[in-house]
Amino acid sequence: MMDIAELTLEQKAELLTGQGQWRTHACPEAGIESVFLCDGPHGIRREVVEDYSQGIPESLPATCFPPAVAVGSSWDPEVAARLGAALGREARAAGVGVVLGPGVNIKRSPLCGRNFEYFSEDPLVSGVLASAYVQALQAEGVGASVKHFAANNQETDRMRISADIDERTLREIYLPAFERVVTEAHPATVMCSYNRVNGVYASQNRWLLTDLLRAEWRFSGTVISDWGAVVDRVAALAAGLDLEMPGTSGLSARKIVEAVRSGTLDEIIVDQAVARVAQLSRFSSATDDETFDVQAHHALARELAAECVVLLKNDNAVLPLEGPGTIAVIGELAVNPRYQGDGSSRVNSTTVDVPLQEITTLATERGAAVVHALSSDAVEVARQAEVAIVFAGTATEAEGYDRESIDLPADQVELIRAVAAVAKRTVVVLSNGGVVSLEGWHDEVDAIVEGWLLGQASGGALADVLFGVVNPSGRLAESIPLRLEDNPSYLNFPGEAGHVRYGEGVMVGYRYYQTVGRSVRYPFGHGLSYTRFHVDDLTVTATGDTTATATVRVTNIGSRAGKHVVQLYVATTAGNVRRPARELRAFRKVFLEPGQTSEITLELDHRAFAYWDATTWDWVVSPGAYRIQIGADSATIVAETEIDLVGDPIIRELTMESTFSEWSAHPVVGPEFRQSMTRNLPTDQAKTFEQANHEGLAMAAHLPMRQFTRAAPALFSDDILEQLMKISRTVPVSREKESREP
Amino acid sequence: MMDIAELTLEQKAELLTGQGQWRTHACPEAGIESVFLCDGPHGIRREVVEDYSQGIPESLPATCFPPAVAVGSSWDPEVAARLGAALGREARAAGVGVVLGPGVNIKRSPLCGRNFEYFSEDPLVSGVLASAYVQALQAEGVGASVKHFAANNQETDRMRISADIDERTLREIYLPAFERVVTEAHPATVMCSYNRVNGVYASQNRWLLTDLLRAEWRFSGTVISDWGAVVDRVAALAAGLDLEMPGTSGLSARKIVEAVRSGTLDEIIVDQAVARVAQLSRFSSATDDETFDVQAHHALARELAAECVVLLKNDNAVLPLEGPGTIAVIGELAVNPRYQGDGSSRVNSTTVDVPLQEITTLATERGAAVVHALSSDAVEVARQAEVAIVFAGTATEAEGYDRESIDLPADQVELIRAVAAVAKRTVVVLSNGGVVSLEGWHDEVDAIVEGWLLGQASGGALADVLFGVVNPSGRLAESIPLRLEDNPSYLNFPGEAGHVRYGEGVMVGYRYYQTVGRSVRYPFGHGLSYTRFHVDDLTVTATGDTTATATVRVTNIGSRAGKHVVQLYVATTAGNVRRPARELRAFRKVFLEPGQTSEITLELDHRAFAYWDATTWDWVVSPGAYRIQIGADSATIVAETEIDLVGDPIIRELTMESTFSEWSAHPVVGPEFRQSMTRNLPTDQAKTFEQANHEGLAMAAHLPMRQFTRAAPALFSDDILEQLMKISRTVPVSREKESREP
Repeated sequence: MMDIAELTLEQKAELLTGQGQWRTHACPEAGIESVFLCDGPHGIRREVVEDYSQGIPESLPATCFPPAVAVGSSWDPEVAARLGAALGREARAAGVGVVLGPGVNIKRSPLCGRNFEYFSEDPLVSGVLASAYVQALQAEGVGASVKHFAANNQETDRMRISADIDERTLREIYLPAFERVVTEAHPATVMCSYNRVNGVYASQNRWLLTDLLRAEWRFSGTVISDWGAVVDRVAALAAGLDLEMPGTSGLSARKIVEAVRSGTLDEIIVDQAVARVAQLSRFSSATDDETFDVQAHHALARELAAECVVLLKNDNAVLPLEGPGTIAVIGELAVNPRYQGDGSSRVNSTTVDVPLQEITTLATERGAAVVHALSSDAVEVARQAEVAIVFAGTATEAEGYDRESIDLPADQVELIRAVAAVAKRTVVVLSNGGVVSLEGWHDEVDAIVEGWLLGQASGGALADVLFGVVNPSGRLAESIPLRLEDNPSYLNFPGEAGHVRYGEGVMVGYRYYQTVGRSVRYPFGHGLSYTRFHVDDLTVTATGDTTATATVRVTNIGSRAGKHVVQLYVATTAGNVRRPARELRAFRKVFLEPGQTSEITLELDHRAFAYWDATTWDWVVSPGAYRIQIGADSATIVAETEIDLVGDPIIRELTMESTFSEWSAHPVVGPEFRQSMTRNLPTDQAKTFEQANHEGLAMAAHLPMRQFTRAAPALFSDDILEQLMKISRTVPVSREKESREP
Repeated sequence: MMDIAELTLEQKAELLTGQGQWRTHACPEAGIESVFLCDGPHGIRREVVEDYSQGIPESLPATCFPPAVAVGSSWDPEVAARLGAALGREARAAGVGVVLGPGVNIKRSPLCGRNFEYFSEDPLVSGVLASAYVQALQAEGVGASVKHFAANNQETDRMRISADIDERTLREIYLPAFERVVTEAHPATVMCSYNRVNGVYASQNRWLLTDLLRAEWRFSGTVISDWGAVVDRVAALAAGLDLEMPGTSGLSARKIVEAVRSGTLDEIIVDQAVARVAQLSRFSSATDDETFDVQAHHALARELAAECVVLLKNDNAVLPLEGPGTIAVIGELAVNPRYQGDGSSRVNSTTVDVPLQEITTLATERGAAVVHALSSDAVEVARQAEVAIVFAGTATEAEGYDRESIDLPADQVELIRAVAAVAKRTVVVLSNGGVVSLEGWHDEVDAIVEGWLLGQASGGALADVLFGVVNPSGRLAESIPLRLEDNPSYLNFPGEAGHVRYGEGVMVGYRYYQTVGRSVRYPFGHGLSYTRFHVDDLTVTATGDTTATATVRVTNIGSRAGKHVVQLYVATTAGNVRRPARELRAFRKVFLEPGQTSEITLELDHRAFAYWDATTWDWVVSPGAYRIQIGADSATIVAETEIDLVGDPIIRELTMESTFSEWSAHPVVGPEFRQSMTRNLPTDQAKTFEQANHEGLAMAAHLPMRQFTRAAPALFSDDILEQLMKISRTVPVSREKESREP
């Protein structure tokens, strides 16, 4: 078999662009096989034909598992892993080698049209779930494609918009989920996004695709383009984009060949990219005669979906439904459920549960009657029932455009209010891909079940939760605000004139609401259960200068078995930057029988305490105090303790641009600096200087040394300053506390 | 006399840096005289000696007029002009040729330590007042120096910090006050600031100092540095900084000479700068034997100060004080008033009014008694008085550092609450350079008089307002928030790692609060009077495609003479950018006797409707509807009407990067584009295309044409597209409505 190096330039160039819509090129003489890549973060969308003349073709039937918006709310890597493994089995059955998922973009705005394909507003939740998904998927022999890399947080103008973000914000918010997946789960591919990042197309962004992904994160897989994301094939290749999708009928290959021939592109870059595309061969499927168990996968979809449901409100324990009596089931969505979004992730489901049927089945088992009502007779039916369940939700959400509002359709709000006004008890079941406002009706109803989009078994899963077959254990992976206007990205979304300014910086989601003390309807992390949990005995021990271990005891003090999510937040003001009020740094979902107690241990690594230091281009744990908080949610701390960390030794280089106060407060050379100054002052002037009035000192404190020495040339010799600067460049500021500049 | 061109390079270079702290170099053989520049936005700070060995030397006695924070609240260019003229007379008497003021930086955050030297959070208020000040000052033969150019909105790290701001925000918020002063009032000098703007020191910022200031705004005066703002003298000179201050003992001159000799600096740049410095000669004062009328200027200071007082609250008309009875005057600030800030603007006042004395004088005239109380016996005294007046305020505010809080000192809040709990009626008089929070005590007191810092006649002016000698007419030039955390810059102030991100963009002050619907304690524009005004008969007429005239009737329907500020706001959603909910576009202060009516005409020029279009680099009035609103303040609209404007014709160039929807909606070539597409579709496919499902169309709408044509190559010939692009480049989109991209 030929070595890649023996292929002609033309042969190699051909391998770097797809063949048609979904396949890579084969090169049998070099042992490179064609691989089928296929849409499907939560279900395989394997098109039956490759002919778009009549629109998007049908795809093979596949299980529509819960979309990421739901999986995110499970806070359970086990859910993500079981989903990933099942996807792998279905992919193999469909002859698919690489599944285009998961999507780990952060929900910056509730308006993003594709939020239903993403997990959370928090990078840790996103990263942990995505990593579990990828590991399980790839254990089935199918490649993953973590996407959309990076900062693709909106659909509006997504093909051109530049996401303008400072590096600290990128590092702390928008990149960590990718980083975790790449470094923990080693995905076969990373998919670049359509948008630009700080002016440069992601597909041509060398910093993203090479410096960060390969050099820092040691990614050894294949970088592929989102479909049509390549603007300039040669520039993209040089930046680190290996495989362009879909095919371009040879056009891109010709451009690559030309560029090499004309000397503008080094052939070694082509060779590297070919080698990485060749790696995908291991995901080729010559045969697609494997099958998957359709029934079992539907049952799994139901089981996983139920884990994702978030019980937002449950006054007077109206849920779970018990005993006889008439249940009024209201709304079109009870018979025609919304369970997935539109766009490239749309699955041709093997079957779809109808909520009304599933409710009827469980109700009948319990001796209750069910009456379905559409809006015309809803009020009359609700009035006579023991409980009214209103199915409400958004009309549609899709890839390609953003929402304009977070309100439910007005007629649905009206229906809810009308029902709640007459019903003995009212339960609202929501189906929505992005957050919806609960205002205008929240206080009128007894219970709210947030079902997000739950996949094809949505109906069964919701019935299971309503009747207590499953005890709900979902937690909000995104804040539900009181008003869209309260969202920190509100004024900077979706941007203008080709740019979207990430003006809120790291203060995304609950980080913002908690830091500015803005009330929300339900905070990130919120979710009720049919049982109750008690948390105590929090202890935290430093395990090094910058790491710690936390243990905490959780007890199920209610009368039903259930799952609790232990949420650990870290709060600090250490460091030279503005820290969010608190940040989720670890979490664990735990199952407990009634009365059962479990001791949970959570490891807090360097990153759990670090911020991105833009002056030293590194993660830094500052010496100082860190509060370790266990939250029932991001707004409700139920246990808390504090540890002091030694922190990282870092170099704090002094220059003539460093201010007087930076010189004076420098842990290593500061004392000598101050002494040297005092030595050069005549006694009476020393007094003058030391006792200088407040504003004088405060003004001097901010003077760079270049200015200070100009104003007072006699105080320091150039020699002394040179000497101190040299020391500052070489001796780390170790184990000394730094505080934020006043 | 020699021409400048005949001077040696060394002679010329010497002229470009100061001689000592305050003077320019003379060059008698070229007829260039030395000029004295001197601190003093609100009073002349003419140091008596130039010797800093014992700290900052004393300065000559001068009148401390109301600082800009107060003048801003007058909303009256007449106040600014009378102040400017008086400053001019004092400058001449002190041998000062150029006064270093006014400061027109925008109050981005209430924490900025130097806010007391600035007018407003609004660029129009700042610009109109500063322009009047400069014109009047210069009419006295003294030069002005508008400062600090530009984006110097904080003191923290002011010598190094980079203000990172997009161009639209600079153009609409941070630059217009400078632009108005430069283009209307032709100041002798513009002073660059210390900070960097988008990474480049203001002193070396060619875009600011040359492209904008000289080429666009046609500034023909001298650009000077803030004291010590020059980092690299040669780079600064090349960027357009003419005069460096203070002197550098020949160092800078040598660097300039070297740079010219080594060919890195063109001598013509030196010659231009010398010519501009030479222009300042007209402000030289060989003699300083002129005097000013100290008594008259103090009286003027009192009169002007009273115009600046803002009556925030006046329940049950507790003010003005009338009739006999005992007045309890409470607080240290009643005998030791705060009336100016610290730093370079600190004036050695000719005399200082003591509020207690001034109140006693006016009370005695009215047969009332006054008892002064310090905090120890305040409650007892207050209990027995008819009314208690509590003087409260901030401890200190100064150039050089920012505040950390907007709270009053805790002991003062406690004092106010204790007094209010027992007093029949409580009036709080505030003295503060930056906004203070009124929370915790606002609802407990009857009246609040916001006196800001009012200058040396503060005591008399406050007494005049309290007793109704003057009917208060000040209006807030900055919002008073409920919480510091509500301020839009809160999370991005004062920045970190050398950068401050202006993340809120144009949404500064009331623009933010109104746009996101955030409640404030008192909105921008608020201020009460002892009489009442009625506004009606608003009519607005377009006077061109992009201009209009508004007339409105104002009637004094109360029983006292007084002044009202007519505030005209424009509200629109026209254009491709996010507009603030409303923006102040014209204002006029009018004096009315009881029962008197006045018809006010306000001209609305192009800029009153325009936004900065970052894609065409120009001010654009979009075709569309504009609501013209008369506000009692920025939150309270009392009259409103709407006009449609034809708008500016602009070029909307189409390229292959333009999206399908931009092509399709283009007013000129859109129809041909759509027809051409339809022609190329077979009939059945046309139907398919037109009736494509919602998400399909929405997704296609955002595709750049380069992508669209790749997906559907048969729909458009290259020829057609080339032809339409050419038309789009040459034919303006005239008189057609555009709407914001969905």
